[in-house]
Amino acid sequence: MKISVSSLGGAGEIGMNMYIYETDRYAVIVDCGVKFTNIDDPGLDLIIPNFSYLEIIKEKEKLLVVTHGHEDHIGAISFLLKSHPEIIIASNRYTYDLIEKKLKEYNINADKVYYDDFKPFEWGDFEVTPYPISHSIHGAYGLKIKIENHMSFFHMSDYKIDLSPVTSCPFPINEFIKIGEEGIDCLLADSTNVLKKGFTKGEKQVVESIDNIFKNHKGRIFFTTFASNTERIHTVINIAENYGRKIVCEGSSLLKNIDTARKYGKLKLDDSNILSRKQMEKYDEDKLLFIATGSQGEKASVISKISEDDYSNIKVRKNDLFIFSSRIIPGNEHRINEIVNNIYAKGGRVITADDASIHVSGHAAMEDCRLLLNILKPNYVVPIHGEVKHLITHIDMAKSQGYKEENIIFFLAGQKLIFENKKLQEVEEIPAGKMYVDLNMNEIMDIERVKLRKKLAINGIVMVVNTAEKNKTIEENNLIIETEGFLLKEEYIHELKLSLINYNEDKTNGQDLAFKEYAEIIVKKFFKKKFMKKPIIKIINTSA
Amino acid sequence: MKISVSSLGGAGEIGMNMYIYETDRYAVIVDCGVKFTNIDDPGLDLIIPNFSYLEIIKEKEKLLVVTHGHEDHIGAISFLLKSHPEIIIASNRYTYDLIEKKLKEYNINADKVYYDDFKPFEWGDFEVTPYPISHSIHGAYGLKIKIENHMSFFHMSDYKIDLSPVTSCPFPINEFIKIGEEGIDCLLADSTNVLKKGFTKGEKQVVESIDNIFKNHKGRIFFTTFASNTERIHTVINIAENYGRKIVCEGSSLLKNIDTARKYGKLKLDDSNILSRKQMEKYDEDKLLFIATGSQGEKASVISKISEDDYSNIKVRKNDLFIFSSRIIPGNEHRINEIVNNIYAKGGRVITADDASIHVSGHAAMEDCRLLLNILKPNYVVPIHGEVKHLITHIDMAKSQGYKEENIIFFLAGQKLIFENKKLQEVEEIPAGKMYVDLNMNEIMDIERVKLRKKLAINGIVMVVNTAEKNKTIEENNLIIETEGFLLKEEYIHELKLSLINYNEDKTNGQDLAFKEYAEIIVKKFFKKKFMKKPIIKIINTSA
Repeated sequence: MKISVSSLGGAGEIGMNMYIYETDRYAVIVDCGVKFTNIDDPGLDLIIPNFSYLEIIKEKEKLLVVTHGHEDHIGAISFLLKSHPEIIIASNRYTYDLIEKKLKEYNINADKVYYDDFKPFEWGDFEVTPYPISHSIHGAYGLKIKIENHMSFFHMSDYKIDLSPVTSCPFPINEFIKIGEEGIDCLLADSTNVLKKGFTKGEKQVVESIDNIFKNHKGRIFFTTFASNTERIHTVINIAENYGRKIVCEGSSLLKNIDTARKYGKLKLDDSNILSRKQMEKYDEDKLLFIATGSQGEKASVISKISEDDYSNIKVRKNDLFIFSSRIIPGNEHRINEIVNNIYAKGGRVITADDASIHVSGHAAMEDCRLLLNILKPNYVVPIHGEVKHLITHIDMAKSQGYKEENIIFFLAGQKLIFENKKLQEVEEIPAGKMYVDLNMNEIMDIERVKLRKKLAINGIVMVVNTAEKNKTIEENNLIIETEGFLLKEEYIHELKLSLINYNEDKTNGQDLAFKEYAEIIVKKFFKKKFMKKPIIKIINTSA
Repeated sequence: MKISVSSLGGAGEIGMNMYIYETDRYAVIVDCGVKFTNIDDPGLDLIIPNFSYLEIIKEKEKLLVVTHGHEDHIGAISFLLKSHPEIIIASNRYTYDLIEKKLKEYNINADKVYYDDFKPFEWGDFEVTPYPISHSIHGAYGLKIKIENHMSFFHMSDYKIDLSPVTSCPFPINEFIKIGEEGIDCLLADSTNVLKKGFTKGEKQVVESIDNIFKNHKGRIFFTTFASNTERIHTVINIAENYGRKIVCEGSSLLKNIDTARKYGKLKLDDSNILSRKQMEKYDEDKLLFIATGSQGEKASVISKISEDDYSNIKVRKNDLFIFSSRIIPGNEHRINEIVNNIYAKGGRVITADDASIHVSGHAAMEDCRLLLNILKPNYVVPIHGEVKHLITHIDMAKSQGYKEENIIFFLAGQKLIFENKKLQEVEEIPAGKMYVDLNMNEIMDIERVKLRKKLAINGIVMVVNTAEKNKTIEENNLIIETEGFLLKEEYIHELKLSLINYNEDKTNGQDLAFKEYAEIIVKKFFKKKFMKKPIIKIINTSA
């Protein structure tokens, strides 16, 4: 039997993770995430994988196994289930709590099964065993995916080897040594942080720095991190309680995550230490910690609004200290910078991970990756979860460990690796790509339509309305020309009209173009020649 | 006499530096730079200061003194001279060479005077003395600006205290001690790098790291840095020559800067070591260094094009090493990242300042700023050249040195500091702001028109053409509705038309709106209610 693994996203890019393991009759999909839009993706909210490959394998029975609850692993599940409601979700209870909150927003009821630490479960030919691992969210797993008598994979989604976590489980290194001893044919593993040398630091290593800040600061403290990093939130709450600070938490995604973490005993927070926003004013500035969303500068986030004096009665004032306990996801630098400048302008101060050791990554650095490879000793190494530079640096490391070229696979979204008798036989291309979601218009579009939106802004639009009756001669005063996005002087409008009414003559000279096609060509040439510009062109015949 | 200093740009932002010192009859303008556009500024090429304040002081005689040849200090001079051809430029010869190359592109002939190291020159009431300082371009100066019997300023534009430069002059610390001893009333000083602790490293400290790379790399080396950093280029050329590598230089801005640097003896390059692009193929890979533009990922740059296989016959291949000897200017991360991924995908490798000590900043870090303050001991401290967070961190440092609140001025573009008897009397608001340049359309626009462009992309445009004759009843088939940037279903178009023809009735009911105004309101409401969307609305009456 042929066994395959494909990627619909996440290999060759950060975000939008989705992998599919297949036998003849069954498919195990691993994760279904979003990618965040860039600042120049106009009016778009999310990027999701193109699911059309699933039509090609529509006869196979599909299970979606979720490794953990980050948006780039669960964010597109609602969109997947809308078109494929038959797919069953397998997830840890913690993660399903987060998924369920998202599904509710879209009124989707999903079929689900829960999995537990180290407990294998079956799906047709597949046996999947979830291994709890350390990352930057609770309930994160690596998956052993075995097809009896055929092949065994280890799918090592986001992880780091943290031996000093605060509330997460320590990385179960002994269990991994056993997996390695039993033998793995193919390892797919996270590459996000492989450009960083050494090992990623453990979560405990931020505690001292954050404690120091609390020890020394007189005034209110505002704290932001990824909403899902409830381990970090646990840490800061603990410190705040030690210093007798009361705690205010704001931001819907933060509250959702805190709710889940408390429910599963991953975050201890004494109700008597929680304040509402309104109660804040009754307490000394030194006795307050405000935890909020906004570590990535999101426009609608609490920290962003506070920085713009647009969040209830909370204004930045002197002695306010804002702690950004997070890295900046590339693309968000500009927005975060705006917030930081706003805070300074209003008298506050900011501490980021550049200023103090207040953040550690949730992803394996070079030496974590090397250690994992040494422990699991797979036959094939397939770097995933990273841009090309990450995948190739991961490959370079495997080579330096003695792996041969033919046992390291440079794997990108849109590819299907086909194995037979434990050997890679073929790499096939499959449909894949990014789909852009405009939530307002409920429109899901491909890159071509996104480019058109950008072109509207960059090049503007020129509209030509032709009011001449059909088959009648077009006079200059039959034409109305308007532009948007740039200004066109009256003299140019006149000149363009004169070029357009040449249509009458050209038509009688045997040119067989309708006015619409003719005008498109003329307008295009006009702007190219005069301004080296390619506006969007809209020709409207009122008599058509 | 009142003495003032104003900022039209550069205080409260990075880029677009322009300051104006004034007496009753004279004005000394210091610098006239551009700010680079962000990735989401659609179809725009440059940002320049709003010059309208110059109309307010049009009777004063104006001299433009240029501190150094970076784009954020000279890039807007062409635009300034187009509207104010009477302004004379005072500059060092080196810098004027760079300015002149820019003016030629716009066919502008400027009046100029050259200044020399430490030689005072006069402009009406002003006496200006240029002090050569270290930065990341040759020919950079700090300016002592003295108004006899009134006040003395020191304008410390971009600088660092480099005591180990390679080809620049070492920072003339003894001369600065003398300035301090003579006394300065007000210091305006660079804040760009004040968030960095310690001293900025000297240029010599990159030599060893770059040399190490050359020593160990087998294959071609591609090198990019800021085109104006000819000291860095001198360094890498020197190293290349030591290892017997021949040199290819590509990219017009790079060639212009190399040309100027060679002309003034600031860059030694043996003609016999220069190759043309075509000659490259005749040499071993180990014997080549390719220096090119593109350190900021600029779309049209040589490195960007090479990474896309779009630069002549130069293709990235195995064993190619690309060295990015520069920092990333915020906003350019995304484009640089694309280039790096392209290079990896084609078999090349990349070294950036994150991987090795191959770049040092040209700007003063915290301790350089502190040292300058200690040396000059001005009465007033005015941080400039930085975003709000930089200015305020600079202010915090001055406070920690014992400066009183009233002697530290938080100064932003659009403000005028008015002094009398050496005391700050008043802070006035003046017109200032960003103007956006679209070179294709030869259009200079304000932020409102830029927002309109962005809105086109984000919200799209809806066009309603009304073909009904004037004062006649409007029928549904008189209306044509088209959209661009989003799709509108047929059923919604129909519904919108029905709402629009309500005009007939509402009009007879005494509503006094023309169809155009009426339709704008209806369409706006329609999109807000159905889609929470605010498209650009264009109503065209063909009979109007």
